Amino acid sequence: MGRRGKPSAPGALLFISHLDDPAAWKRELTSRIPGLGYRVGPGLTDADDVEVALVWAPPPGELKRYPNLKAILSLGAGVDHILNDPELPRGVPIARLVDPMLTRLMSEYVLLAALRHHREFDVFERHQRRRLWEYRFPPDAARRRVGVMGLGVLGADAAAKLAANGFAVQGWSRRPKRIAGARTYHGPRQLERFLNATDVLVCLLPLTPATRGLLDRRVFAALPKGAFLVNPSRGALLVDDDLIEALDSGHLAGATLDVFHREPLPRDHPFWRHPKVLVTPHIAAAGYPETAAPQVAENVRRALAGRPLLHPVDPEAGY
Amino acid sequence: MGRRGKPSAPGALLFISHLDDPAAWKRELTSRIPGLGYRVGPGLTDADDVEVALVWAPPPGELKRYPNLKAILSLGAGVDHILNDPELPRGVPIARLVDPMLTRLMSEYVLLAALRHHREFDVFERHQRRRLWEYRFPPDAARRRVGVMGLGVLGADAAAKLAANGFAVQGWSRRPKRIAGARTYHGPRQLERFLNATDVLVCLLPLTPATRGLLDRRVFAALPKGAFLVNPSRGALLVDDDLIEALDSGHLAGATLDVFHREPLPRDHPFWRHPKVLVTPHIAAAGYPETAAPQVAENVRRALAGRPLLHPVDPEAGY
Repeated sequence: MGRRGKPSAPGALLFISHLDDPAAWKRELTSRIPGLGYRVGPGLTDADDVEVALVWAPPPGELKRYPNLKAILSLGAGVDHILNDPELPRGVPIARLVDPMLTRLMSEYVLLAALRHHREFDVFERHQRRRLWEYRFPPDAARRRVGVMGLGVLGADAAAKLAANGFAVQGWSRRPKRIAGARTYHGPRQLERFLNATDVLVCLLPLTPATRGLLDRRVFAALPKGAFLVNPSRGALLVDDDLIEALDSGHLAGATLDVFHREPLPRDHPFWRHPKVLVTPHIAAAGYPETAAPQVAENVRRALAGRPLLHPVDPEAGY
Repeated sequence: MGRRGKPSAPGALLFISHLDDPAAWKRELTSRIPGLGYRVGPGLTDADDVEVALVWAPPPGELKRYPNLKAILSLGAGVDHILNDPELPRGVPIARLVDPMLTRLMSEYVLLAALRHHREFDVFERHQRRRLWEYRFPPDAARRRVGVMGLGVLGADAAAKLAANGFAVQGWSRRPKRIAGARTYHGPRQLERFLNATDVLVCLLPLTPATRGLLDRRVFAALPKGAFLVNPSRGALLVDDDLIEALDSGHLAGATLDVFHREPLPRDHPFWRHPKVLVTPHIAAAGYPETAAPQVAENVRRALAGRPLLHPVDPEAGY
């Protein structure tokens, strides 16, 4: 190897995220790809060497500044935070993050939220504020039907973990899919039947033009009385006012929300004060540099070599 | 069979519980044991036919009223609610309830409580009251050490479920025990080492003279700063004031309590208003008549026939 001399240095990677740690990612990636340039944006000047971008929510117009960009890699499972850039450079391949740790965290969040509603900790928290002791016979998870919308990597894993912990699980997806141990439905025509048989609705759909505002009053009306909503996907899937109406009418019994139309959730938003809503600050899942780096490094190598990416995104479908 | 004529009717069962459904238990037991008399107490007169008692927290002095009692069967996993009767008839065998559903419910409660602390839902609930959005990078369950005290049927199952859901699990018991996938400690001399390495302490010990008041300031001091307590066992294991002191000093970060010295928890008890304590009304687990009945029916048959009971209790050890 040494005889051929030092290979020409690979290009540089541009890192942009206000949530992830640039130093940890630098450590993981430069150790795997010797010579990789590593630059933290946004707003670099003189950046012709940037060939790959690893990003969470880059500012609109940012990515078009890099003329030699060969790939855009998401730091999240979703890519709506990239695709919503109206000036996104066309034709640059995009890949999502598939990180076993991110998947594990998401399923854990979903399981916790489902268990919390199922075992009525939400009710007992409200009772505690009134110092009310009210015994309830503990319910059977096998009779609690959890319906998972979206059966990609995240939805399929969440469904499996919910089933492993005793819930009656079913799934719905845009296109037909099978998952072990759970009945599946697909497409708009089977949505109502799926919802009719769902006591805890878990949304793990990507945000696309087709899913924006999907969680609306018609969806809630199709759920049985007393059902719950868990949304750790994207805030724009939900019509906030419709959820509040469904909760206030008593049709829905509670909601666990991790994502919102605007984040941080504005202080005057009614979700903050709603007794049946639990707000968490977009913490359901995150990419861990240690666990995601092997796959990201492979995609960086592929991008630099002009080869097809793993986990590519179809910009038309939005996921 | 018919040739021998109708067998003599078996004796009667006495049912006592203010939490369980006498009709459901009657249905399950009389369908399994034809001819079984079924009487609901306490306070029966003329009860010489009672040969078996199926009880939760019978009033003190109650069980000595039945001169032909051959067995006392608990409606719960613990038997302290029977053994604390100072006039308990001596020499009558006692059995605990081993119900796969009760075990499942208990492990589910423990998993939920551990996940809720681990994923900081307790923190986010407090933040929500202040409308505070504070992002925290999601923590890794593999680095959260859950220590289970008590490795009987319930403790062993809880440890397995916690491990299956990604936690780092270890166990402690009075006598040496092994459980799959978890390091175990035993006896008073290894208690401190166990506690030093426990971030979430789960108490599934029986209440006995040896365990009363075990969860005290020395135990809390041996836990790492920021640890949590989960107690779904019995309230009398805990020294309430020591827990409050450990929480208020900031050494412990939170507690989930299902059981209390007095139940219902008195309205003036400080746990109700403590921001780091979640109070649930003794709902962690219960015997389901449908799932527990086969084992209870077998013990009723054994008692009527004078044979040894399943899951017998050693009154000296208290479990």
